[in-house]
Amino acid sequence: MEYFVPPLEVLVEQFAKLPGIGRKSAQRLAFHILNSTDADANKFAEAIVNAKKLVKYCNVCQNITDSEVCSICNNPKRDSSVICVTESPKDVISIEKTNEYHGLYHVLHGAISPMDDIGPNDIKIAELLKRLESDEVKEVIMATNPTIEGEATAMYIARLIKPLGIKVTRIAHGIPVGGDLEYADEVTLTKAMEGRREM
Amino acid sequence: MEYFVPPLEVLVEQFAKLPGIGRKSAQRLAFHILNSTDADANKFAEAIVNAKKLVKYCNVCQNITDSEVCSICNNPKRDSSVICVTESPKDVISIEKTNEYHGLYHVLHGAISPMDDIGPNDIKIAELLKRLESDEVKEVIMATNPTIEGEATAMYIARLIKPLGIKVTRIAHGIPVGGDLEYADEVTLTKAMEGRREM
Repeated sequence: MEYFVPPLEVLVEQFAKLPGIGRKSAQRLAFHILNSTDADANKFAEAIVNAKKLVKYCNVCQNITDSEVCSICNNPKRDSSVICVTESPKDVISIEKTNEYHGLYHVLHGAISPMDDIGPNDIKIAELLKRLESDEVKEVIMATNPTIEGEATAMYIARLIKPLGIKVTRIAHGIPVGGDLEYADEVTLTKAMEGRREM
Repeated sequence: MEYFVPPLEVLVEQFAKLPGIGRKSAQRLAFHILNSTDADANKFAEAIVNAKKLVKYCNVCQNITDSEVCSICNNPKRDSSVICVTESPKDVISIEKTNEYHGLYHVLHGAISPMDDIGPNDIKIAELLKRLESDEVKEVIMATNPTIEGEATAMYIARLIKPLGIKVTRIAHGIPVGGDLEYADEVTLTKAMEGRREM
């Protein structure tokens, strides 16, 4: 049943399509737009169109960028012998924030997940293998998420890369810094024990 | 610090401006837009612009509408001798859903709230009084929220209307249907006792 006047109803429906936004939240957001100035509403609409139009994938690492090749791939100071493989551009940002990693990235845009009908050809694995054809890369760090899908993806890619004679590593699993042993789950704790290092 | 490419960063900032949406949620929503089709993104942007452009206030009741006078005010079957006063258009929709009220509405677009610097002139009280100038209206139902601001607004308006010889009523406060006495707060329970009716 349609309760709002059509232009408002359309906006509510659009908001309700966003992930994690239900009908009630969508109404609240739509009313917020109605109560904002014309200029603000236009700016919002423009931001959507521009983001969609201007943001593309880097030709090399598939990270999001507004040019052909992203600023990380273009940076001559980065170590091009290491590639860190992540599931999403957000993960790249998380790692960049540490300021500790100076190699390059490769964004898969997803993980292998048979349940969701996502196979190896649906994520950017072929693009990664193509980058490894040159002899420059010495190590590939698998930084996919520590989920079933992320682990499976890391294992799948590792098996493809190893025959090329390139070192493949996996980021460490363990207790988060500041975390509490008491509240760590068994799997994490097991991984933390397995991955113990001499002090 | 700016982490995303500018067009994406702008979109994240726009989403983060919405009520109840933090930076993390805004990122998630922005990525959802990036992953949607061009057509879907354009539809969303259009919905924002159109809602802002086409939705206006009804000349009579101040409810939102896409014409000069809203469909409720224009409906000859509605009882024009009763006006139900609400704080927001959402409240009108809630009451309409009951299918029990057949009078007209008046939307104040807010409530008197000295704390937020909202006085009687900042909400649509003058427009309500103007409607009462004709002799047609016999009853005004105050359906503002049962909050301090809503109560104050109802009292303020009641004091203005009573001298005009028009009946002013307030919606009942009490235990919600399906509610539990045990969990009702004291004020609600007191109001429910005060408002008791013979069976």
